[in-house]
Amino acid sequence: MQATHPETRTSSRLERFMERPAVQRGILLLIVINAAILGMQTSASLVASWGELLTLLDTLILGIFVVEIAARIYIHRTAFFRDPWSLFDFTVVAIALVPASGPLSILRALRVLRVMRMVTMVPSMRRVVGALLSAIPGLGSIAMVLALVFYVSAVIATGLFAAEFPEWFGSLGRSVYTLFQVMTLESWSMGIVRPLMEVFPYAWVFFIPFILIATFTMLNLFIAIIVNAMQTVTDADHQATQVSIDEAREHIEADLHQEVRALRSEIAELKELLRGQAKR
Amino acid sequence: MQATHPETRTSSRLERFMERPAVQRGILLLIVINAAILGMQTSASLVASWGELLTLLDTLILGIFVVEIAARIYIHRTAFFRDPWSLFDFTVVAIALVPASGPLSILRALRVLRVMRMVTMVPSMRRVVGALLSAIPGLGSIAMVLALVFYVSAVIATGLFAAEFPEWFGSLGRSVYTLFQVMTLESWSMGIVRPLMEVFPYAWVFFIPFILIATFTMLNLFIAIIVNAMQTVTDADHQATQVSIDEAREHIEADLHQEVRALRSEIAELKELLRGQAKR
Amino acid sequence: MQATHPETRTSSRLERFMERPAVQRGILLLIVINAAILGMQTSASLVASWGELLTLLDTLILGIFVVEIAARIYIHRTAFFRDPWSLFDFTVVAIALVPASGPLSILRALRVLRVMRMVTMVPSMRRVVGALLSAIPGLGSIAMVLALVFYVSAVIATGLFAAEFPEWFGSLGRSVYTLFQVMTLESWSMGIVRPLMEVFPYAWVFFIPFILIATFTMLNLFIAIIVNAMQTVTDADHQATQVSIDEAREHIEADLHQEVRALRSEIAELKELLRGQAKR
Amino acid sequence: MQATHPETRTSSRLERFMERPAVQRGILLLIVINAAILGMQTSASLVASWGELLTLLDTLILGIFVVEIAARIYIHRTAFFRDPWSLFDFTVVAIALVPASGPLSILRALRVLRVMRMVTMVPSMRRVVGALLSAIPGLGSIAMVLALVFYVSAVIATGLFAAEFPEWFGSLGRSVYTLFQVMTLESWSMGIVRPLMEVFPYAWVFFIPFILIATFTMLNLFIAIIVNAMQTVTDADHQATQVSIDEAREHIEADLHQEVRALRSEIAELKELLRGQAKR
Repeated sequence: MQATHPETRTSSRLERFMERPAVQRGILLLIVINAAILGMQTSASLVASWGELLTLLDTLILGIFVVEIAARIYIHRTAFFRDPWSLFDFTVVAIALVPASGPLSILRALRVLRVMRMVTMVPSMRRVVGALLSAIPGLGSIAMVLALVFYVSAVIATGLFAAEFPEWFGSLGRSVYTLFQVMTLESWSMGIVRPLMEVFPYAWVFFIPFILIATFTMLNLFIAIIVNAMQTVTDADHQATQVSIDEAREHIEADLHQEVRALRSEIAELKELLRGQAKR
Repeated sequence: MQATHPETRTSSRLERFMERPAVQRGILLLIVINAAILGMQTSASLVASWGELLTLLDTLILGIFVVEIAARIYIHRTAFFRDPWSLFDFTVVAIALVPASGPLSILRALRVLRVMRMVTMVPSMRRVVGALLSAIPGLGSIAMVLALVFYVSAVIATGLFAAEFPEWFGSLGRSVYTLFQVMTLESWSMGIVRPLMEVFPYAWVFFIPFILIATFTMLNLFIAIIVNAMQTVTDADHQATQVSIDEAREHIEADLHQEVRALRSEIAELKELLRGQAKR
Repeated sequence: MQATHPETRTSSRLERFMERPAVQRGILLLIVINAAILGMQTSASLVASWGELLTLLDTLILGIFVVEIAARIYIHRTAFFRDPWSLFDFTVVAIALVPASGPLSILRALRVLRVMRMVTMVPSMRRVVGALLSAIPGLGSIAMVLALVFYVSAVIATGLFAAEFPEWFGSLGRSVYTLFQVMTLESWSMGIVRPLMEVFPYAWVFFIPFILIATFTMLNLFIAIIVNAMQTVTDADHQATQVSIDEAREHIEADLHQEVRALRSEIAELKELLRGQAKR
Repeated sequence: MQATHPETRTSSRLERFMERPAVQRGILLLIVINAAILGMQTSASLVASWGELLTLLDTLILGIFVVEIAARIYIHRTAFFRDPWSLFDFTVVAIALVPASGPLSILRALRVLRVMRMVTMVPSMRRVVGALLSAIPGLGSIAMVLALVFYVSAVIATGLFAAEFPEWFGSLGRSVYTLFQVMTLESWSMGIVRPLMEVFPYAWVFFIPFILIATFTMLNLFIAIIVNAMQTVTDADHQATQVSIDEAREHIEADLHQEVRALRSEIAELKELLRGQAKR
């Protein structure tokens, strides 16, 4: 397949171009400008006087992004779609290309997600988001327990309060939302439980334990993150202590061996002397 | 008692059957399906069109659970009632068997607690809940202090404010509820203390210290959990350091003994040589 | 002064009596019963039917407490007033003896503080409260900074908003109270800042930084407690590691000395042999 | 440049005077008195009866501060403006000198910032504020991610809700403020999201993830501070362990060398003896 040769050559030349710091900085600058433009488009007065220019610039920058993503797909081929950061870039740029009309008009508001590409471009932000995301899997089991508590509580709450308080507990979804509000402690008493207690005087028997269990579980979720983060720190220290204990041991033993070797050579000399005497 | 022999044989054959992964997975699947059914039963429209089917399925699954629990009791005998997880399974299934009518109609809403059996079935969730529960005893003393603070504050608040604000402080129970709300900081000022201060201008003298003491005590309760969790981590590291210090010591000493043994054998040789000379 | 002898004898006999576990348990029981009585006295219906009995029992128990405190003062003399726990017991019992009428009628409500003596009696609660109190001095500097931030912010807020919002910022005291409410995030926006912004559109310039600074400082106050608690734990581990390093060193060196001593005695033997040969 | 000599002499004599503990304490006392005066000036009744005296005292103290700052500038020259604490002192005193009239009348309220000089004067408070400020740079990357999340969310919220809820989401600034309120969980549901859901039933799809992401990021910001603080502690312990391992190693080796030196000198003696015999 000789036909791939020139193509590969183009690909690697393109890759070198794309990875130039100047190009990377240029794209980052475009993202920042795009962020400003998208922000300015929320102002009715700015849109009235500069609307067309803003739209033009936005379309232009979007065009550059499309070319950039296309170039990266051309360079990395299927590897592009295996890198989660690249997939993120692809998705947020793709959103802007979907015609935002009819049932999809909501997507217009999501165009600004493009600005999130800043995270993929700035290494320190990428590290922070990476760390945030890497903390999530360790929380899986606690999150599942919390989800179960929410589901069971929502079914109970719907069963008990749906008839009298349809707005808060009318369906499973509404109950989950209300319980989430209660877990964040927002207006849980004055807004929700006190009105409920006027009809169901024992409503607190349900809500106080729910608050205690939900916040205690959330708290343990937080503590799990803290302890994990701390463990990384103490483990590094521990590792270093381990290494220096081993080094100390080796150093002492090396010293011991050297000293004993010296002693043995002296004793060997003695032996020589003795044997010399014996021969005489 | 030869009569127990065949029974024991049945029991152990039944145990092998119950502990098969396929059977366990089957029960877990039934719990999930049951959860979905109980959730669907909260929707009036679903009940209208599929109500009888849902009730039938629910009854069927409940029947299987009853058989399962009965089998486990038959297998483990009294040991079943000494295992807290088994007792939990027994209780949540038993709730569904109590006729939910008259004063016990509340139990109908608690049928969904059955879904909590998922915790007993999935090892990772069981570990999480076990860890949550095991953190509680260590909090006993702080919880007792907090309870005492609540009781004393509630008696004071009832004494001071019951006459003017019966809805919030009319009885000991209402005061405890209101103080719990204040501790969670929900509408404590705009909802409770500011209205109070219009009648009792110095009400803040009671509530500000109460908030400081209650949140400070709660905070220390949380810190106790964090420190316990961290201690487990640092203690493991410490143990490992200890072990490697001991190992280093033993290794060095073994080395020392070996080297000295070698030296001694050389000195012994010398002695032999000398004695040989002496004998001549 | 022979007259003191019999007195001392009485005193020590009284001390032995007071420190008997049965007596201590009896007083603790009386505190619990007293707590229940004081709780029951908040209920109008219970007071209507059992009021006189409750008052009688309360007076009786109070009498026993007075005798108990008097006995402890008789035993420990001035030392009694140097022990903070004893002083606390003395104060909360003394409160009940002040005639609660006229301007002091508020003291009636504080009679229940007597129940707090439970903390002095139960060792585990005493430890918890001791730990809570011991955490406070270390927070002094941060608390002073926070107090300064509050004072300065309150003066600024009073200067800016007193005229238009006298209820919230009419005086320095009201401003401090409102800022405390804002710091706890209770209704800070919907209740306070949004209404303010209708008159002063830039009120957020004052409140957002205040919230950030106040909560950040509070947070550091909490972190100081966590780090102190953790330090106690890690320091204990560190101490133990230190000790085992020292022990390892001493053990190795003792071993070394012993081995070398053995070698020297063998070399000394050699010398003897040689000298013996020389003499011949 | 002989002319500088006497000046330098004046400068150093002035410096010695300014650094006297009595002078420092005097300035601190003036700051406290000034704080009290500025507090009293917020009370209309106090101003009515003592207003002129308070203003006179305030002007007097301000005059002393101006002289003090001038003296410090005279002593330290340009170094004064490189020390952030000095710059802070300079700024808060300078604010009081700007004529507080017309558009600058807001500065009158900021005169009280002068009281913050207490932080520069009291070493323990200076340490606390220094520690708080030093924690900030390490939070830069997380703060940037949080700012990006806020910006993107505000643009989306403005795009979606500006038309129907102009008071909350009418402009980018209003959306940022409302989202900050939502992040602090203040009235997020009863005050903001529930009213929104009456018009946009799926508003929760935007707000629940926003709350989860924003609070999770904030939480990680807090955890970063805790872990940093803990790391300082554990690193100190680790350093000490390291040192004592090294000391143990050196001590053991010094011991070993000394013992071996003694052995060698004995062996050397043996050699001498042998050589003596050989010579005979």
